[in-house]
Order: sequence, then C-alpha cells, then structure tokens
Amino acid sequence: MNRRNFIGALAGAATGSLAASALPKIEASTMQAQLEALSVFGRPAGGTFQNGVSRVGYSDEDIAGRKFVMDLMRKAGATVRIDTAGNIFASRPGSETSLPPVLFGSHIDSVPNGGNFDGDLGSLASVEILRILNDRNIVTRRPLTAVIWACEEASFAGSALNGSRIAAGITKADELKQVWRGITKAEAIRRIGGAPERLEAARIAKGAYHAYLELHIEQGGTLAREKVPVGVVEGIVSIDNYEVVIQGFSNHAGTTPMLDRQDALISASHLTLAVREIAISETGGQVGTVGHLEILPNATNVIPGEVRMHIEFRDLSSAKLDRMGEKLKARAAVIATDSRTEIRITRAGHNESAMAATEIQRLIESAANRLRLDSRHLPSGAGHDAQMMATLMPMGMIFVPSIGGISHSPKELSSWQDCANGANILFETVMDLAR
Amino acid sequence: MNRRNFIGALAGAATGSLAASALPKIEASTMQAQLEALSVFGRPAGGTFQNGVSRVGYSDEDIAGRKFVMDLMRKAGATVRIDTAGNIFASRPGSETSLPPVLFGSHIDSVPNGGNFDGDLGSLASVEILRILNDRNIVTRRPLTAVIWACEEASFAGSALNGSRIAAGITKADELKQVWRGITKAEAIRRIGGAPERLEAARIAKGAYHAYLELHIEQGGTLAREKVPVGVVEGIVSIDNYEVVIQGFSNHAGTTPMLDRQDALISASHLTLAVREIAISETGGQVGTVGHLEILPNATNVIPGEVRMHIEFRDLSSAKLDRMGEKLKARAAVIATDSRTEIRITRAGHNESAMAATEIQRLIESAANRLRLDSRHLPSGAGHDAQMMATLMPMGMIFVPSIGGISHSPKELSSWQDCANGANILFETVMDLAR
Repeated sequence: MNRRNFIGALAGAATGSLAASALPKIEASTMQAQLEALSVFGRPAGGTFQNGVSRVGYSDEDIAGRKFVMDLMRKAGATVRIDTAGNIFASRPGSETSLPPVLFGSHIDSVPNGGNFDGDLGSLASVEILRILNDRNIVTRRPLTAVIWACEEASFAGSALNGSRIAAGITKADELKQVWRGITKAEAIRRIGGAPERLEAARIAKGAYHAYLELHIEQGGTLAREKVPVGVVEGIVSIDNYEVVIQGFSNHAGTTPMLDRQDALISASHLTLAVREIAISETGGQVGTVGHLEILPNATNVIPGEVRMHIEFRDLSSAKLDRMGEKLKARAAVIATDSRTEIRITRAGHNESAMAATEIQRLIESAANRLRLDSRHLPSGAGHDAQMMATLMPMGMIFVPSIGGISHSPKELSSWQDCANGANILFETVMDLAR
Repeated sequence: MNRRNFIGALAGAATGSLAASALPKIEASTMQAQLEALSVFGRPAGGTFQNGVSRVGYSDEDIAGRKFVMDLMRKAGATVRIDTAGNIFASRPGSETSLPPVLFGSHIDSVPNGGNFDGDLGSLASVEILRILNDRNIVTRRPLTAVIWACEEASFAGSALNGSRIAAGITKADELKQVWRGITKAEAIRRIGGAPERLEAARIAKGAYHAYLELHIEQGGTLAREKVPVGVVEGIVSIDNYEVVIQGFSNHAGTTPMLDRQDALISASHLTLAVREIAISETGGQVGTVGHLEILPNATNVIPGEVRMHIEFRDLSSAKLDRMGEKLKARAAVIATDSRTEIRITRAGHNESAMAATEIQRLIESAANRLRLDSRHLPSGAGHDAQMMATLMPMGMIFVPSIGGISHSPKELSSWQDCANGANILFETVMDLAR
C-alpha cells in the first residue's frame, strides 16, 4: 500500500487527527507526582528524588516498583496480567474487541545508581492514559494495552531488553541458566511472577497487536541543546562491536631506545584517535567509541607489550557501519606498520537497526503540531524495548529532552513540562492509532 | 686535580695500562660454566638454562645462590663476610694493605621469571678474577674486594637496590617494617645473614674504597644492534615520574553525539603520543614512556570519564628532563582545551642521575683497545647498584650486548664470548685501578 493508505489503515482516517486535539491534557504536576511516587522503590537510604535510584531488574526493589505500578493499573480499571517472561500487561477493551490492540509502554527497572526518568516516564505516562480514559469513560475503537517490560537494562551476562526480547521470540541457548547476583535467570523470572518453564508462551505473534509506541527520555543532548521539546525517533541504531588485540613487545622502559620500541599503547592511542576521526569524518549522527582498554603488563617502567580494546560504531545505516569498519581496518593496517605492532580486529557483535514506521513518525509529528510543540526527527543511539517490537509490528518512539544529555546517572533529569508534553503526544498518538 | 692527574691517582700511572695487556684471559667456556652452575638456583621445575630463573631477593632460592657464590669466593682464597644489610664481601689483600681497596661486583637476585645474565654476569666475573689471581699468586698493590649486593631488584614496596642503598646510607622511614611475601624486611635481611638492628654498620664511609666497578648486560638493544661488544657507561640516567589524572565526563556511548563528548581516553591518547613526540624531538638517548593507564568506568558502551596514567622520562641530564617536563605540561594544556577535559599532572618522583667517573670511562675504553674490542659510550637507562656507589667513590660500569635488547625475561641472552669480553675488560680495569 502507499503511505497515505497505510496511515489510513493505522489511524483510521488522516483527518481523524483534528478530533484528537480535543483530548484531556496530562499535567506536569501529575507526571511529577507519579514519577516521585515510583522513585521511592530503590531510592538510596536517606536520599531524595535527586539521589537517583537502584531498581535493578528482578531485584526486591524492582518487585516493589512493579507492585506499585500494577496497583495503579488496576485503579485505572485495566485488566492486569503477567506473561511467562514477567512482562506486565494492562488491558482495556475497545468498542471492537476483535481488533488487534494498540500496545504502548516502557520499563521501570534501572541500572544500578541510575536516574528516575529512564523507562519510568514512558511507563507511568502509559498508565496515566488508561486512568484518564477510565475516569472519563472514553471508549476507543481498538483495545489498548499498556506494557511494562521486564528487566530492560543489562543484568544477566550483559544481556538487555530481557522481557521484550523473549516476547519477540529471541532467546539464547542456556539463557535461563545464567547466574547473576546469586540466582539463575530462571529463578529471577519466577521471582517477578513469570514461568520460565513456559517461556515460549510469552512470545507475541505477528499481527497480535496493531502497533507499538514508546515514550522515553532521549538520554542524549540533542533536543536539550537545540531547545526542541519533542523528538520523533527515526529508528534505533545498529551497533557494530569490534574486539581489538594489539601485540607489541614488552621491554624495559629505561633501556629500550625510542626507535627500537614496539609499544602497543602507542599503537592503541593512534587507533583510538582514528575511531573518533572516522566517526566525525562524514555528516550524520554516527558515533564511534573506545570505552574499554586494557594494557599488559600495565607497569610504570615497562613498555606496554599488549593492549586489548573494544571499539563500537553506531548508526541507523548498516551500510555506513560497514564503511566505517572498512576505514577502521585500513587505518589499523597503516598504524600497525608505523608502530611495528600487530593489530587484530574482529567484529564481535552486530545489532541490526530497528526503523520506526514512517507512518507512525508522521502521526507523532502531527500530534506535536496540534499541541503547538516543535519537533525534530533523530535516531536513538541507545537500545530500547521498541526495537524488539519493531520485529513484530509497526513501531514508533517519542523522545523528550534530557538536560545536559545525562543518563544512567542520578543526575539524569528532564523538566516536568517536557515529561507532560511527551505524555500528551503519546496520548494523542495512541488515540490516533486506536481510532 | 686535572684529569690526567686523577687518572694517575686512580690507576697508578697512565703508562701502567701497557703491562695489563699481559693478563691471563677469562675464557667464554668458563663464563658459560659459571653462569650455568648458578642458574640452577631458582630454575623453574623441569626447565633448562633457557627457561630463565626466579631468584627473588631474600628468598630460599636467593639464599641457595648466595651460598654457592660464597663457596666459590672461599675456593678463590678470599675472606668472605656478610655486612648487616646482607651484602657479601670477598676480600683479598694487596701488597699495601693500608690502601683503600678496589671494589667491584654486582648482584645475583633476579626478578620473578627473569633471565640468567642480569647481575649474575658481573657477580661471577668478579669472583673469577679473584680465582685467577689466587691461582697464579698475583698480588696487586691495592687490596681487592668483590661484592654481591643484596636484593638489587625491586622487592619491597617497589624499592630496588636494597643492599647498596643501605651501604650508601640511604634508608627510608619504617623501611624495616615493610611486609612482602609474608615477612618484614627486617626478617628478610636476617634470613640472609644480615643484622637489621645494626643496619647503620653496613654504611660505607667515603674514602673507604678506591673506586667501584660493575660489569652488567646492557638490557637494551644499542650494542647488539650496532654490533659493538663493549659499552662504556657514561652514567645512570635520572628518572622523572609523573602521575596524570584526566577528568572527562562519563556518558552513554550511543546517545552522546561526537561533538558533545568529553572523552578522557581521547585526551589520554593525545597525551600518550605527545610523550613519545617529546622524547624523540631532540637528539640524544632520552626516553619517554606511558607504561600504566587505567580508565573509568572501562565499559564498552560508556564514554571514558576518567583516565589515570603514569609518565616516565629518563635522561642523564636533569636539565633535559626539566625541559621535557615543561613541554609535557604545555602540550597537556592544549590537549585539555581541545578535548574539553581537565588534565592534572604531578611530578611524583625524581631520581638523580649518577655519573660514571670520566677517568674510569677512559680506563675501560683503553682496556677495550688493548683487547682489540670496539667500544662505545652510552648511558644506562636502567638503575644499578653502581649508582649508589657513585655517591661514595669514583664509579665505572661496563656493558655487554643483550641480544634483541631483551631483559627481565627468560629470553634475556648474551653470547658467551661477549660475556668473556666483558669479564676480561673488568679484569683489566680492576688491575689498572689496583696498581
């Protein structure tokens, strides 16, 4: 179908957007009250909202937070169930009960020592939408389902998006046997009400839902710097991870003349700078990072004999990532020769990008227009549960500004008005999709 | 006194060197047999000479090696004593017993997993000289004393040159209470026959000896690369150690645009390359090394927020080191601005250089000429017991080539002929000084 028809299919009718502008508004004070209420679960002892939160997935704090949110869902008149992976679904019928529901939500687990906006904003805004509809007896054509995904943040052996990944049917061998904080993943899932022995029952079939929407803080600084309150996510970037081993020769730092050296750290320094140069050498939002680096033997008076490092490139376009990888290898070859070291580069990981449906991007943009909010399109450099849903249905994401671009930190902050704006755009878009 | 007179004072008479060329020669096979015999003390189980040695100072292996060497000394007719610091002295009278003796020697302790030449060569060559003189009933004018310094390699809290440092009267507060491998330094010294409660008795008075000579492997690759069999050491370099803390800002590697970053590792990479550039930007043997570097948080997907690193500069000239330090700070200021990081640089250590006496350098050079061996002058980039003796008396050092410049490794290797050449030059120079 062409784009216009598809919008029609998703949103009922292109002109339907006019009616949606009459929706009740979610207030900044409401979002503040909700986020502050949730923040107590996992708050550092003696701290305040500003001290952030440690609500790690599957922990006691997570379980307490989930109970709080499920109570809110029930108060909003929704039917609450936990799937076998531990994901929480709050359902509200539509006037045409046989239609696939609109799915929207986020997560409430956090990284250790994280902030009170990452995940929480989209989760609580979703429940608030159900509450308003219930209070005002508004019935949508399609059923609505708010979802809280289990353990979005990396917890087990570095694996993130735990609940949504299982829902998308992507499981890893021996995943349930992974041990973390003294318990297996099977036990962890059981703790939060899941049933690990029937994990396949959590799988969502294609066509089971109409579309997926997620409101989230940007976690980067683009919107805040440009003073744009609404981000329309184009997609979630693809990630290439490279493992690098640089072999030099360890020798006495006093007795080895400069020109005789095969210093693995000199080689690694050149390569680290090359990664940055490659990332900034063309226009676009691509990024390149060396976040991890280890030296052997790492002694003050010994020339580094070996360096192991990880390089990460992210962009929406896999073709661009491939090109960056080729540039990296070409630069590494020159650096290896110049520094008389051996550089071995292995692509250790590749995450496919997940594109947001163009039609949903347009619905979000037009909702922002109706609410007289500037918006801009941008990629998501971070991973989200939405990328798992994109494998099953049309997906869209709404970003609100992160002050200073800070995230995964107690300093993570968004203004209450930006939070409310995001919640209202989510509300508008859900209603458009449900019509 | 002028140089000529000083040579006269040290070597009896400038023309005396002609007579020395008639000395008996130490054979390559003798040095091989001696070094192989010592190598069994601390050899890895089931290994051979090629597997290196772990004869760490004050260990059981060290004690066994010391006993072996003391037996050799006694067989060479010398009078053996251990001072209160655990240094071993083997004395042989001269015809004028009241003259200060000529002192020469090295050490037999090794780093863990070290080689069989570092220290051992100079130690065994010194004892072999006493043996030859004893066998042939050659009596020198001055008395001779061969010395094996206790624990030259770093063992306690990083402190090296343990025995010679105490002999030079340089002790550190609470040094004897330092614990290593489960025992205090006091106990360690007692184990090898010292008397830690009377450590000051190990102090050597200025004027007590006529001069100090040490034969050692180069531990660098200059002589081997230039195919020069004899190195005349100009002095032992000065070392400046800098502690560096780079403060950037830790953030999400996916969501933070390249131009918003304050990446501490980018800053550290520029600084690491600057250290090398500063070291090679002027002629001379100066070296600069970043051997130690740590990143926080050191996670693949997090922009490095902090880097801690150590920088070391070495050169004979303190003035040059000061200049390199100034260049470092100037470069760091530019790098900090460009990378939007804060760089704090602190000079954490400064070892003074120890110059070899010009007169002894000339004696070594003329001994090489008599033996028809090429020689070249070069600095020692590594520390040696000789630098402690240089604070008390005229000092000289002889280097022989290290194949590939490798040291502190089982791969440490010098040819038997180079070892014998070094021993013969030590012999010639000792005899010149003792005349």
